[in-house]
Amino acid sequence: MDCAFCAIVAGRAESVIVWDDDRVVAFMDLNPVTDGHVLVVPKAHSVGLDDIDPTTASRMMWVAQRLSLALKESSLRCDGVNLFFADGEAAFQEVFHSHLHVFPRFEGDGFTVGAHWNGRTHRELAQAAEALRSALR
Amino acid sequence: MDCAFCAIVAGRAESVIVWDDDRVVAFMDLNPVTDGHVLVVPKAHSVGLDDIDPTTASRMMWVAQRLSLALKESSLRCDGVNLFFADGEAAFQEVFHSHLHVFPRFEGDGFTVGAHWNGRTHRELAQAAEALRSALR
Repeated sequence: MDCAFCAIVAGRAESVIVWDDDRVVAFMDLNPVTDGHVLVVPKAHSVGLDDIDPTTASRMMWVAQRLSLALKESSLRCDGVNLFFADGEAAFQEVFHSHLHVFPRFEGDGFTVGAHWNGRTHRELAQAAEALRSALR
Repeated sequence: MDCAFCAIVAGRAESVIVWDDDRVVAFMDLNPVTDGHVLVVPKAHSVGLDDIDPTTASRMMWVAQRLSLALKESSLRCDGVNLFFADGEAAFQEVFHSHLHVFPRFEGDGFTVGAHWNGRTHRELAQAAEALRSALR
């Protein structure tokens, strides 16, 4: 098993840890979007949303909220926060151990998102919704 | 109170809802990144990570995971999934009622992220971590 994040969780690889509980750890991203960028990572290996234990996924969000509040109260520059989770290579996942990005934002920080934001008709939205609802059933 | 998402939650504004439980609803984003783009929204009004009830935030993640699995099983194009939460105007929040984006991803879908990903030294990471840890205490 040579998962980089499992190695961090096991203490076999160096990292700067800021949170450690029974289910998750959080450590500093080595290539931060902004200073204070943290990754919230389950201790048990999972690749992504398909195989992560739901209680652990919920805990990740809980910890992300705690970290977000702390970032805002800290001396770091933080006027807002983004949470970002990449599930799958097509979604820009690079390390295949589930992780939730938590990073401070401020005017001029250089972070951008782009998309083909073409509005959809009600009919198109209803079709997508129906496809989703049938899969949920 | 003229919050657009409170109006949807209360049934006073039109939306295409795909999930409805005691704490959250999920409905189709009107300007999707890709078809199947859903917003997971708490029923109780909160602006963002500062004031959302932590149990509700955890539930949002739980629902996002259910929706993600369904998107992958659906007839919609979905090779991966991103979750994105924008807290604060500096973090690209546009509707000031907490919401978690869940959207399918596939090669060539046009979604991009950009940042000044300059690596940090261990010393710089340790300084940011210490600022965060003091705020957590």
